[in-house]
Amino acid sequence: MTDFWNDLPEVKRRLEAVSAEMSATVRSAGFPLAEELTRVVESDGKMLRPGFLLLASEFGRPGRADELAPLAAAIELLHIATLIHDDILDESPLRRGEPAFHVRNGVKEAVLTGDWLFSQCFRLASGFSTPENARRFALVVGIVCSSEIRQDLDKYRYSKSVRDYLRKIAGKTAALFSLAFTLGAVEGGCDPWDVNRLRRTGYNIGMAFQVIDDILDCESTEGVFRKPVGKDVSEGLCTLPLILALERDDGSLLGMLKDPPFDRGTIDRILERIRDSVALETSRLAALRYTERALREIAALPDKPARLALRRLTERLLVRAY
Amino acid sequence: MTDFWNDLPEVKRRLEAVSAEMSATVRSAGFPLAEELTRVVESDGKMLRPGFLLLASEFGRPGRADELAPLAAAIELLHIATLIHDDILDESPLRRGEPAFHVRNGVKEAVLTGDWLFSQCFRLASGFSTPENARRFALVVGIVCSSEIRQDLDKYRYSKSVRDYLRKIAGKTAALFSLAFTLGAVEGGCDPWDVNRLRRTGYNIGMAFQVIDDILDCESTEGVFRKPVGKDVSEGLCTLPLILALERDDGSLLGMLKDPPFDRGTIDRILERIRDSVALETSRLAALRYTERALREIAALPDKPARLALRRLTERLLVRAY
Repeated sequence: MTDFWNDLPEVKRRLEAVSAEMSATVRSAGFPLAEELTRVVESDGKMLRPGFLLLASEFGRPGRADELAPLAAAIELLHIATLIHDDILDESPLRRGEPAFHVRNGVKEAVLTGDWLFSQCFRLASGFSTPENARRFALVVGIVCSSEIRQDLDKYRYSKSVRDYLRKIAGKTAALFSLAFTLGAVEGGCDPWDVNRLRRTGYNIGMAFQVIDDILDCESTEGVFRKPVGKDVSEGLCTLPLILALERDDGSLLGMLKDPPFDRGTIDRILERIRDSVALETSRLAALRYTERALREIAALPDKPARLALRRLTERLLVRAY
Repeated sequence: MTDFWNDLPEVKRRLEAVSAEMSATVRSAGFPLAEELTRVVESDGKMLRPGFLLLASEFGRPGRADELAPLAAAIELLHIATLIHDDILDESPLRRGEPAFHVRNGVKEAVLTGDWLFSQCFRLASGFSTPENARRFALVVGIVCSSEIRQDLDKYRYSKSVRDYLRKIAGKTAALFSLAFTLGAVEGGCDPWDVNRLRRTGYNIGMAFQVIDDILDCESTEGVFRKPVGKDVSEGLCTLPLILALERDDGSLLGMLKDPPFDRGTIDRILERIRDSVALETSRLAALRYTERALREIAALPDKPARLALRRLTERLLVRAY
């Protein structure tokens, strides 16, 4: 686990229980690639989604968070399953600075391992939550898959509107954050108003998170974020910065996008055009708007220690782009 | 749907409701490839697993089968999800005589569509069964994935024992048949003795089914079963007929298996060696043993119309190899 949770020792302690649950799951029931998958599970993730799930539960019954490790493990294993499949589909060689799972174990094993992880998530969700939440869990996984398919079908099509973009990231990213908050809130026994508030908090954090991710893809250097710059552009994704840059394009940017696959030089020229426009600035404003909405929801939550923690985390997580 | 269920109009009528449920699921919630997936869902499957699920439920409360269409749809959609992923991994160009899903829609869309189908299965299972059965469902999906991985890791390794083979097919095939019977029995409200009897019926049918499938791969001609002959051999699988042929091998058969990938000539020579040995005959006896066990379990079930139907189906399904 990273140092992300260092100043919240309570959450950190519980996340260690979640990690233990994840490792136990992977080593259970004779899974043939347990060793290899343990490497992934124990690698350096921030554990954002399980952390938020546990924090959300604290607005309900005190101490309930201690019983939610299996459900929190389910949502992080789900995240890992989607990363393993994504890396195959994007042909990404690296994940968290290490060779991706499919590179070490083959595509076939990686597809099946992702499938196996899905099954374990549902096993945990159906064993350790209300049937309603198990159903909600499955529903959101469906939304994430649908959104990924829609994104892929729209590749190299650059006439997309901001509205389409927002709908896509709502499905592929915000839905999962929103689920983490909702599961925690419902299982924690929050009242319906607070459940809805926490659900919206998760949604807005997720939206801001994805917009920032898309901004970083246009500006960061590989060393720092361990992710190749311009990956979205090279894959033909139409992210918010690109959409905004295209809005004021004289046709030359669109011209560069005509002939995929793009070589490194073209990608760099496209990124330069995005950086030279107001697109990144405007995208940052969009992220800020979602962040503010999240903070407003948080401010209206009951006055408990978890509220301050949630505010600080949100600021820290989402401030990285401004 | 095929004519397989023609002489059981009650089951056939209910399977039509299951088909409708499957189609509705695929067309629900804005799934982007609904049209393409509908083609698959509505193509010519026997609907064995949902049929058995419904039949098993009839040993409990009468009429309960009418409420089990969503759960029966879940188990068939799960089967379809695994077929879509299998076809990618095996690089199979055809499925049920049509171009495979990944051939028509691309590998990426096929992986994500399989993932989406998994999520819909779990959604149906968690919405339309007891939490215990939803958990059981997820557990079996995990077993199927584990077994597929184990099978893949063991490819081109021919020193395998019969015991290893049986364990592998128990996981990859019998577990799902057994699940279908168990879900039907439990949801139908059967008493615990009959639940166990039906579970074992499913297991034995599944084992016989897979052994027969492996026999057919050595002897059938493509036209009839729409599956290329020698597929298992070409993929380096060590099926029962091959294990048994290797048991009496003077070293020459093992020699042919030394240098994969095999060309068509080598595959045909390997198949010929299997056919010339007693391996197919002995495999048939093994399948017959499982079939007899299934029929013995069925004979001990309560005397209801479903019992005769189940016996007839089992004989028809499993008799194809003797």
